[in-house]
Amino acid sequence: MHVTIRVAVAGASGYAGGEVLRLLAGHPDVEIGALTAHSNAGDLLGRHQPHLRSLADRGLVETSPAALAGHDVVVLALPHGASGAIAAELGGDTLVLDCGADHRLADAGDWEAFYGSAHAGTWPYGMPELIVGEGRQRDALRGARRVAVPGCNVTAVTLGIQPGVAAGVVDAADVVAVLAVGYSGAGKALKPHLLASEALGSAAPYAVGGTHRHIPEIEQNLRAAGAPSVRVSFTPVLVPMSRGILATTTAPLAPGADASAVRAAWEQAYADEPFVELLPEGQWPTTAATVGANTALVQVAVDARAGRVVTVCALDNLVKGTAGAAVQSMNLALGLPETAGLTTSAVAP
Amino acid sequence: MHVTIRVAVAGASGYAGGEVLRLLAGHPDVEIGALTAHSNAGDLLGRHQPHLRSLADRGLVETSPAALAGHDVVVLALPHGASGAIAAELGGDTLVLDCGADHRLADAGDWEAFYGSAHAGTWPYGMPELIVGEGRQRDALRGARRVAVPGCNVTAVTLGIQPGVAAGVVDAADVVAVLAVGYSGAGKALKPHLLASEALGSAAPYAVGGTHRHIPEIEQNLRAAGAPSVRVSFTPVLVPMSRGILATTTAPLAPGADASAVRAAWEQAYADEPFVELLPEGQWPTTAATVGANTALVQVAVDARAGRVVTVCALDNLVKGTAGAAVQSMNLALGLPETAGLTTSAVAP
Amino acid sequence: MHVTIRVAVAGASGYAGGEVLRLLAGHPDVEIGALTAHSNAGDLLGRHQPHLRSLADRGLVETSPAALAGHDVVVLALPHGASGAIAAELGGDTLVLDCGADHRLADAGDWEAFYGSAHAGTWPYGMPELIVGEGRQRDALRGARRVAVPGCNVTAVTLGIQPGVAAGVVDAADVVAVLAVGYSGAGKALKPHLLASEALGSAAPYAVGGTHRHIPEIEQNLRAAGAPSVRVSFTPVLVPMSRGILATTTAPLAPGADASAVRAAWEQAYADEPFVELLPEGQWPTTAATVGANTALVQVAVDARAGRVVTVCALDNLVKGTAGAAVQSMNLALGLPETAGLTTSAVAP
Amino acid sequence: MHVTIRVAVAGASGYAGGEVLRLLAGHPDVEIGALTAHSNAGDLLGRHQPHLRSLADRGLVETSPAALAGHDVVVLALPHGASGAIAAELGGDTLVLDCGADHRLADAGDWEAFYGSAHAGTWPYGMPELIVGEGRQRDALRGARRVAVPGCNVTAVTLGIQPGVAAGVVDAADVVAVLAVGYSGAGKALKPHLLASEALGSAAPYAVGGTHRHIPEIEQNLRAAGAPSVRVSFTPVLVPMSRGILATTTAPLAPGADASAVRAAWEQAYADEPFVELLPEGQWPTTAATVGANTALVQVAVDARAGRVVTVCALDNLVKGTAGAAVQSMNLALGLPETAGLTTSAVAP
Repeated sequence: MHVTIRVAVAGASGYAGGEVLRLLAGHPDVEIGALTAHSNAGDLLGRHQPHLRSLADRGLVETSPAALAGHDVVVLALPHGASGAIAAELGGDTLVLDCGADHRLADAGDWEAFYGSAHAGTWPYGMPELIVGEGRQRDALRGARRVAVPGCNVTAVTLGIQPGVAAGVVDAADVVAVLAVGYSGAGKALKPHLLASEALGSAAPYAVGGTHRHIPEIEQNLRAAGAPSVRVSFTPVLVPMSRGILATTTAPLAPGADASAVRAAWEQAYADEPFVELLPEGQWPTTAATVGANTALVQVAVDARAGRVVTVCALDNLVKGTAGAAVQSMNLALGLPETAGLTTSAVAP
Repeated sequence: MHVTIRVAVAGASGYAGGEVLRLLAGHPDVEIGALTAHSNAGDLLGRHQPHLRSLADRGLVETSPAALAGHDVVVLALPHGASGAIAAELGGDTLVLDCGADHRLADAGDWEAFYGSAHAGTWPYGMPELIVGEGRQRDALRGARRVAVPGCNVTAVTLGIQPGVAAGVVDAADVVAVLAVGYSGAGKALKPHLLASEALGSAAPYAVGGTHRHIPEIEQNLRAAGAPSVRVSFTPVLVPMSRGILATTTAPLAPGADASAVRAAWEQAYADEPFVELLPEGQWPTTAATVGANTALVQVAVDARAGRVVTVCALDNLVKGTAGAAVQSMNLALGLPETAGLTTSAVAP
Repeated sequence: MHVTIRVAVAGASGYAGGEVLRLLAGHPDVEIGALTAHSNAGDLLGRHQPHLRSLADRGLVETSPAALAGHDVVVLALPHGASGAIAAELGGDTLVLDCGADHRLADAGDWEAFYGSAHAGTWPYGMPELIVGEGRQRDALRGARRVAVPGCNVTAVTLGIQPGVAAGVVDAADVVAVLAVGYSGAGKALKPHLLASEALGSAAPYAVGGTHRHIPEIEQNLRAAGAPSVRVSFTPVLVPMSRGILATTTAPLAPGADASAVRAAWEQAYADEPFVELLPEGQWPTTAATVGANTALVQVAVDARAGRVVTVCALDNLVKGTAGAAVQSMNLALGLPETAGLTTSAVAP
Repeated sequence: MHVTIRVAVAGASGYAGGEVLRLLAGHPDVEIGALTAHSNAGDLLGRHQPHLRSLADRGLVETSPAALAGHDVVVLALPHGASGAIAAELGGDTLVLDCGADHRLADAGDWEAFYGSAHAGTWPYGMPELIVGEGRQRDALRGARRVAVPGCNVTAVTLGIQPGVAAGVVDAADVVAVLAVGYSGAGKALKPHLLASEALGSAAPYAVGGTHRHIPEIEQNLRAAGAPSVRVSFTPVLVPMSRGILATTTAPLAPGADASAVRAAWEQAYADEPFVELLPEGQWPTTAATVGANTALVQVAVDARAGRVVTVCALDNLVKGTAGAAVQSMNLALGLPETAGLTTSAVAP
């Protein structure tokens, strides 16, 4: 007998919502239910997501608890701050996956310092591969009914550096991460610096100097992975591509550690992961090799002259960085195969 | 009982071969067999196709009839001129799909004029949606054991304009097609004008003035669709994107035809096609909405002031333009569902 | 004695205004006066045009006749419809260059049909190279005090095809033009389809089917060049570059004309032009070779099989397509060397 | 009286050579003499540099001391290792500017470790803004007859961080630099990873882990600026743009230093520099704002949470990173105004 899971998507006309729908449309166990939006309510989906042909004639209704009720799963792809109230009205049996930031942080003070509003609470964190003590975060996701999907930049930095943190071969007290990021991470907001004319042929940093909201989430993850002390310098740089994050993360080589210990830490961390892959030595990840796939590609090297470990992690911000993480977490929460509806084959070149 | 089809791919380290593999890796009825290459033989596939993680550890062997023997299907993604000799050595029961040009043209004189070598012969043409008299080309593909996969630019122009040709509402004697094309269509050849520095920020025409090899193939298709007389002005323009073809094709409005007759012709032509879609009136195709999908998106308008019908067709040159057409034809030839292993959901934005 | 010309720029925070300023900042005879804007009035220019360092600390004042008064030259880079009222308040001795469309068309009916508002009148047309009967338009610009700067797409199509029209070797009654255009031509308007995420990796047509406002202006030019009858099918396609227009324009080869007559017509037309260049036979223009320069690069071929002449013209929409045309016209109007402040060296790659 | 300087360019068909020519073509005191090349010798320049119209008909001759003799200035834009032998044959009165790496490093051991060949010697270093003790490097360039033009990435990192090093407000013993770099920095070499299809839509690191040849040159500069101890982790990331470097460089805030001391250090360092500009607080550099200009745009912030100073420097790798630095050094060496032939207005968007 085949049980079909009915999934509603709130924020279906945005980039994150569209990517969730793309994955769900190919998921063998899913039936897509209500599609909701705010300013685009009343339109057909095909007007806003012309690339999703099988759903082009589906209508968008106003986002509301009523519209989302009666589904097995609700995916929220809403602006920050909007998910708490809606989730409160959805039954405890409904699996709610929040692609926004609202429920990611455990520390209310961090939330308030970086987001400037009241903390909505903390949900199980949807990064199955996160190293938590001796185990992985996926255990906390089995059977969960609320999941906070991680931030896309956070995922790239965390997956890049956590093996070294967990194994104690790097010093997490001086992490420096600089990310080349594509424009889709900024969503469909109409802001001048997101115009094509500004983006084409340019590289543009933003949120420099410790102000980016993803910083406390990275710190939280590295503490979970075992870091006694964490400090992260984090700089994202917009580059002219639609999708993709390439995170270059470095940390001092820990006293007593060497290149072989580093290699061993990374190999061991990801040997059994279906979606995180340490590349053969000497081959460095590119974002192109992850487009549309749920993969994070990782490489690591020791720079002896500088005394630092350098790791690079590439992923598709809309897949492993958002929608793929949501589907992977959904699979775990519902007891489906973790890889259902997800692929490791990217659309390249 | 589930029968698995064993498929070999020749030219597996190139762009077309890589895309065939991407689709086959997700095809429910396929097992991937031998992977062959020429200058890259001996390498692991992951070195050349890092985006295909499930096949990264597969080895590339030298392309030869022996290496390709013993498979149910062989896909040839080789330089023009290389497929005839190999196919001759493969058994008549083996389904051979040639992604090259060698077996597309029925007229040996056209072949010799545009390719400058001896004609290898003509195979069933792998464009299921091609209008052929009262029927479609797909009927000729059922049970076929040799298939000539169409040219990517040809597919975009043909699917764009053929409804009007078949219905007699445009005059095919004065077709003008100008195409914005991505760089992957040029393959991995190391030529100066294909360098990123040259491509970024630039639009560059090539093969202008009636010299492009795809011209006789377009003419052949429009004659098949019923044109009493065909002349095609064809200009491709390289633009800074990796994938995609956007073909703008115009032809004079036929005497007596009007906008409603034009609309009706296009609607009727594609009403039942799974992979060619006429968009709602006023919505124009973009290549982004086809990336990774096997879809061709089409729109049409009548320009009364100029006396011309203008149609735009967008598709992914590596999917509907090459590898997707191969898989779709394979499905038809083997009696599988035509859509198996193919999607209409594109990876956008 | 060196006379310095004082120039004010209205719309200084936009793309066209910024490019006018870039050229004026390097013009040996110019002093930059008032800089005006509307929503950005009150800001420093450096906030909106960070690439113009020598003017970064200049303030933007509200656009008004008073602010623009007292200059030798006023360049208007305003939305369509805004220039007529302002120009009426500027003295007749002031040279006013309108980068908008308001004063380009001679036929009020065309204006109303394509722009939907009252016609503001007709000014001398700022395309010095336009063939007008036996002469060139530059003669009409000497001493002018009002100049209508041409549309960017119009310039590319006109410069591409006019030699054949004037020489009678092509039939202007069936012109087809398809243009690959960069995003800066659309200005800084905040529209969803202009977002970087939408543009990157995509080609997107717009104003298809005879609706683009540049059509009557092209027709007007080709009539000036001597065409007895003009019909133009015109389709612009946005491609992922910031600057540049590559116009592919075709027309039927006129009866009795041949390839050598075609070559001769193009050679003769541009032999003495400082900014329009017919490339050596076989070399096709790219937009990269025009970025930042005031050049239009042209090539032409005869497609005997299709019976058509194909010409390609590449230019920088913000320079030869807008700001460079304004400066070139200013030079002519004021009796300066026509090339002052302009370059033929592009910034490539 | 106006003295014209005759300049020869070796490597005129490459990207660096082309950019030198673009600048020289607009330099008021320069006459362009011999243009040399290797594999392209015998061609017209216009075939390889179609964007330089005024030089299109100039011929390329084989690079040799004889061809370069008899000029006031010789610019060498040759592969690493080629300039030493040629320079030895040019008279001591000739100003020779080497755009290659051969003469940049003072430490022969560093040269041999990173370049693997014999050291060619050390020439005055062509970065006028480099802080050297209490002065600037420009003093060493006045009257020089041999100049080693700095590496492009080196320039971006050095100009970004040196004010803090010189003022003692950062600790140069733990510098981390990650750069987004455009493809033209890699030259016209035909390598697979430089193909447009690979570049478009992707970010790709290279020379990760302390292997990049620019590292000892950065270290040398920071020692010149006063660092008692220097260690640099350096990672370049290719992103899909033709030109531009955006260097994000961080270093620990020195004990006792604070944000106002940091700001003061950067302000003081560049207050009088014509081509290096500290932007107003809160405005971050983009590479687009430097394209074609000789400017380096800099910003700095203190990340108190991470205990690090973060600085971003944007420049055009072919101008301030190569050809502009050569011209600026030439001006100084010959006693011309330092800014002659150079602009601070970039071609944007």
